[in-house]
Amino acid sequence: MKSFASDNYSGIHPEILDAIQEANQNHQISYGDDEITSETQKLFEKQFGKTDVLYAFNGTGANVIALKCCTLPFQSVICSEYAHILVDECGAPTQNIGCSLLPVPTNDGKLTPEMIKPFLNRIGNVHNTQPKVISISQSTELGTVYSINELKSLCNFAHLHNMYVHLDGARISNAVAALGVSMKEATVDCGIDIMSFGGTKNGLMMGEAVLIFNENLKENAPYFQKQTAQLFSKNRFIAAQFKALLSNNLWLRMATESNKMAQLLASKVKDLPGVLINRKVDANAVFVIIPEEVIEPLRKLYPFYEWDAQTHEQRWMCSFDTTAEEVDEFVGKLKELLNVKN
Amino acid sequence: MKSFASDNYSGIHPEILDAIQEANQNHQISYGDDEITSETQKLFEKQFGKTDVLYAFNGTGANVIALKCCTLPFQSVICSEYAHILVDECGAPTQNIGCSLLPVPTNDGKLTPEMIKPFLNRIGNVHNTQPKVISISQSTELGTVYSINELKSLCNFAHLHNMYVHLDGARISNAVAALGVSMKEATVDCGIDIMSFGGTKNGLMMGEAVLIFNENLKENAPYFQKQTAQLFSKNRFIAAQFKALLSNNLWLRMATESNKMAQLLASKVKDLPGVLINRKVDANAVFVIIPEEVIEPLRKLYPFYEWDAQTHEQRWMCSFDTTAEEVDEFVGKLKELLNVKN
Amino acid sequence: MKSFASDNYSGIHPEILDAIQEANQNHQISYGDDEITSETQKLFEKQFGKTDVLYAFNGTGANVIALKCCTLPFQSVICSEYAHILVDECGAPTQNIGCSLLPVPTNDGKLTPEMIKPFLNRIGNVHNTQPKVISISQSTELGTVYSINELKSLCNFAHLHNMYVHLDGARISNAVAALGVSMKEATVDCGIDIMSFGGTKNGLMMGEAVLIFNENLKENAPYFQKQTAQLFSKNRFIAAQFKALLSNNLWLRMATESNKMAQLLASKVKDLPGVLINRKVDANAVFVIIPEEVIEPLRKLYPFYEWDAQTHEQRWMCSFDTTAEEVDEFVGKLKELLNVKN
Amino acid sequence: MKSFASDNYSGIHPEILDAIQEANQNHQISYGDDEITSETQKLFEKQFGKTDVLYAFNGTGANVIALKCCTLPFQSVICSEYAHILVDECGAPTQNIGCSLLPVPTNDGKLTPEMIKPFLNRIGNVHNTQPKVISISQSTELGTVYSINELKSLCNFAHLHNMYVHLDGARISNAVAALGVSMKEATVDCGIDIMSFGGTKNGLMMGEAVLIFNENLKENAPYFQKQTAQLFSKNRFIAAQFKALLSNNLWLRMATESNKMAQLLASKVKDLPGVLINRKVDANAVFVIIPEEVIEPLRKLYPFYEWDAQTHEQRWMCSFDTTAEEVDEFVGKLKELLNVKN
Repeated sequence: MKSFASDNYSGIHPEILDAIQEANQNHQISYGDDEITSETQKLFEKQFGKTDVLYAFNGTGANVIALKCCTLPFQSVICSEYAHILVDECGAPTQNIGCSLLPVPTNDGKLTPEMIKPFLNRIGNVHNTQPKVISISQSTELGTVYSINELKSLCNFAHLHNMYVHLDGARISNAVAALGVSMKEATVDCGIDIMSFGGTKNGLMMGEAVLIFNENLKENAPYFQKQTAQLFSKNRFIAAQFKALLSNNLWLRMATESNKMAQLLASKVKDLPGVLINRKVDANAVFVIIPEEVIEPLRKLYPFYEWDAQTHEQRWMCSFDTTAEEVDEFVGKLKELLNVKN
Repeated sequence: MKSFASDNYSGIHPEILDAIQEANQNHQISYGDDEITSETQKLFEKQFGKTDVLYAFNGTGANVIALKCCTLPFQSVICSEYAHILVDECGAPTQNIGCSLLPVPTNDGKLTPEMIKPFLNRIGNVHNTQPKVISISQSTELGTVYSINELKSLCNFAHLHNMYVHLDGARISNAVAALGVSMKEATVDCGIDIMSFGGTKNGLMMGEAVLIFNENLKENAPYFQKQTAQLFSKNRFIAAQFKALLSNNLWLRMATESNKMAQLLASKVKDLPGVLINRKVDANAVFVIIPEEVIEPLRKLYPFYEWDAQTHEQRWMCSFDTTAEEVDEFVGKLKELLNVKN
Repeated sequence: MKSFASDNYSGIHPEILDAIQEANQNHQISYGDDEITSETQKLFEKQFGKTDVLYAFNGTGANVIALKCCTLPFQSVICSEYAHILVDECGAPTQNIGCSLLPVPTNDGKLTPEMIKPFLNRIGNVHNTQPKVISISQSTELGTVYSINELKSLCNFAHLHNMYVHLDGARISNAVAALGVSMKEATVDCGIDIMSFGGTKNGLMMGEAVLIFNENLKENAPYFQKQTAQLFSKNRFIAAQFKALLSNNLWLRMATESNKMAQLLASKVKDLPGVLINRKVDANAVFVIIPEEVIEPLRKLYPFYEWDAQTHEQRWMCSFDTTAEEVDEFVGKLKELLNVKN
Repeated sequence: MKSFASDNYSGIHPEILDAIQEANQNHQISYGDDEITSETQKLFEKQFGKTDVLYAFNGTGANVIALKCCTLPFQSVICSEYAHILVDECGAPTQNIGCSLLPVPTNDGKLTPEMIKPFLNRIGNVHNTQPKVISISQSTELGTVYSINELKSLCNFAHLHNMYVHLDGARISNAVAALGVSMKEATVDCGIDIMSFGGTKNGLMMGEAVLIFNENLKENAPYFQKQTAQLFSKNRFIAAQFKALLSNNLWLRMATESNKMAQLLASKVKDLPGVLINRKVDANAVFVIIPEEVIEPLRKLYPFYEWDAQTHEQRWMCSFDTTAEEVDEFVGKLKELLNVKN
């Protein structure tokens, strides 16, 4: 089976799997005091400059650790109404930290300073939770990518008002590939305080990394990681995967490829009758409205998710291992269902 | 490097690693709706009978999920003063659930109904947290193993007083191997309500499974798993490991071997001068008091943990990959340091 | 000073103060096992039929206890965007329980089944928090009152979908006075599962009562009350206040009077130039837009709150001790500032 | 009924009740921005020097606020095995904050630096909760009183190891009366960082005050108070009680009297046959072992609590309104039951 459902339907990139095998030598000190973890730390610093790195098993774990570093229970996190932390984590951040999430309506999944301003009048009012974090996803849950300027303006605004910026980077590699800059330019240099660097959706077996750039947020992070049940005894096996991901530009090669496949897919369907691509295709996701009657038959070939049951908007997600042939076959089937000549 | 530090210093058993590789085919539905997870469910039921299975990334995650299924925040969990949930998880159960842990002093790491009785007078008193769970570790943190009768008597007592029994089975395979009964006889049949089945310390790359036998505890478990950041998108890769573990008695083969190595180690040092084995060697751990001056030089060869800095009691832990040669070399070095002729 | 700021600017009704004094005899068993608490229980049951009663010190305490009885941390509470639990309690319900609050936009502060429907598709999806409670305020934060039919239809809808209805009754007396029915008809008989019965805003020195009608919610309530720091050692002094409130229709006399004053106030200003009463005046609050330049001078005479800084909508709240003379004086000043002849 | 059960069986001191009545004039700004609260602040500073004051409804509320100011969820609070926060608050601190309480065995209810030392080796170990607060009760739950030197030595030790000292002062007035020093000398000057100043058990209708001396702990306290459901809208009525308590030495007069009654009671029973006073009578509690057969008949006259069902140790607590006549009558009855000639 291949799919356009999610980049977590895919498996492990062969270079990652090789790294796991290679790490399987002898005994190693547990909980991250091993050599592979130490080497991987250097690779992270090569990409991002000075940073604390804490591994997490999954995206929810990474987000909870990061938000724990930033908030006290009476504070709140401002995020898009589509944010993964808000709608896809069964309330884990709120349950674990006690803080409230404040959703902001948005058309393209992106926040702007203008949208945050109304929350400023809560500051200092003991009856309100106190806004402390702006949390953004890059690329967003709608497949869009913040520009460098948008990031900088958001970070400046946050810091001006004594808030932090958290970046949920489950798909940060796709965003950075799309922006055509370095990892550092797209994150630390914009003013991001803390972020997760996604692995699972970009070819790892499993694993995310929380990167802490702001010195104020570092002190307690290891305790938060442990208490969130994210500290891995055999840490070398997660570090080894990131070591491979950060070597030979594997992260960039994979992200570039999945982005390219999304562009290919979008270009091939955009002019088909009854097909509407209603969001910008910035990264590896294509959001598309298609006629109701073709959804089920098409989905049988390659599974995908319906994003909006009302409008029949579908989400087609490309993965590191999506091939041009698969795109062709998929589009061919769609044309057939739409009675369009191939 | 090899070590007697912890069974989590070891790597991945080759059969487990093969299983990961084999699972790396095509795309699969995420979050456990894949075929491998489904096959592994059957293998669990073959061992334990009817059970709900929820995977967790690590032992802390598994324990938190299990205790969440059993407790409300005003309830309390009675456990040994040495319990992993009490002393080694940075307060994760308490922080995640809000419930209190009530430690019980014990010489051998095991609880008895007699030790629990004093807590019964709290029941119904609104000023006290309400005892709801007896949590035991099998094998215990002191390397001892509850007998079948001890388990049954504890479970009967718990159920009589409207409490649940949680079994932290990070090393359940070692215990069952030692008892010489089936998995089912050593758990469900004794009345255990919920348990974790440890993988990481018995040859897996990573992974634990929460097994729920008591029907009352099943309904909300998947939400607790998700909210504890333990739901794995690419679940096939954890299920595949358990599939291998439960196939061809791999769990038993590995546990039997590490238990055997602990016996060998104990038998070879027990009569050495200045050496005192002060706890029963039931499973894969040897607790031993050795002269202070030999600790550091011995530890250089094979790392291990000091259990008690006051008495110089050491913990030597055998792993699935500990060999008789390693035991010999280690004992040889000890003798040398003790000036005992080999 | 007198004010139209809030019904919590007022003091203690003389009959309530007398009751406190009268209760100050001898010693009494603490934590609610005293005679006065027992007599007050009977008075509550006279009003509501069979009910569990738990006292709380303030509204936030009462709401937290009630929501704790209804929810587990992975569940969510649906409420109006204006709900006190959402915007005025510094996130206390979320922090204490771990559950998420899901805000619903509304023009008049009232929820309808239609507004709740979109949340039903979360049910059973482990990635989403599970809707379990519909929380309404009666009267609402916008001064409106749900009709009996509206309440029934909401409760029916909730129960059909396995949800509870929580009623925040900080101003329930005003609502019931406005509806002209009995307390029981306005609450239990509509299907309300659990509610707070407000005292502080209706003449008490302090105190709220959580009333539990649904049998499923009763068992653990005393523990939740204690753990929320709301169990009062000298409980007779809160019970005595409620005893007075529930005697000789004091609650109804006070609520009727403050409602009447709101009607009087509204009727006297509604036709003044530049004055717009833009919400229904159902209970004891008048929401009114007035010219910006008169706000400050008027507020000097009788303090009140600005509800919306953008539109200059003000909230004028009448209290049990608001008099017709005070209304006259206030309106007179407003006319003067508006240059309207008296 | 009068009793020796608890100082919370008693009612309101007449001067306190007068203060409530006097405060019941006009409207006042809510949530503590009123004049009475402002005057009471000055009285607190007269006693303690510069301090932040936050009111709480009850002792549990005060303790939760104070510990929230001091701890993050991965940190722990060291306390006596008898501490109210540990055994009498249904786990409220743990549930509200997430932090763990670490009980220390003690014969007289008092902690010493020596007892805390074993916890120091947890510091910096990510697997352990991190000791951050030493919480003491003054007077203790066993009726004993820390000396000034004991307090200073504990505070010095705490600060040396980067910990705070929290003082649960539910009965601080009794302790200070016993020590014969000023409030300030017995608290701030010893190095106490944060404390509760008890009112309910010393003649108030209800109310405690959290006093924050350490600058580091002040910033977020008002949010913690609000989120713990302890912010009182009609705050003038709690402030007025403290105003009376702090005026004309009322706190000292009441505490001195209840201490005196405890001394009287102890002196009158200490030599009776079968009667053993087995703890120091430092404040207003007498702990006494009496023959089993006299317990129930005696308790019928004046209720009291059995402290230890095994040894038949009873706790007799004197209150501000305990009289010498009551002591006489009680002792007379005891003698009668013991067949001792009066």
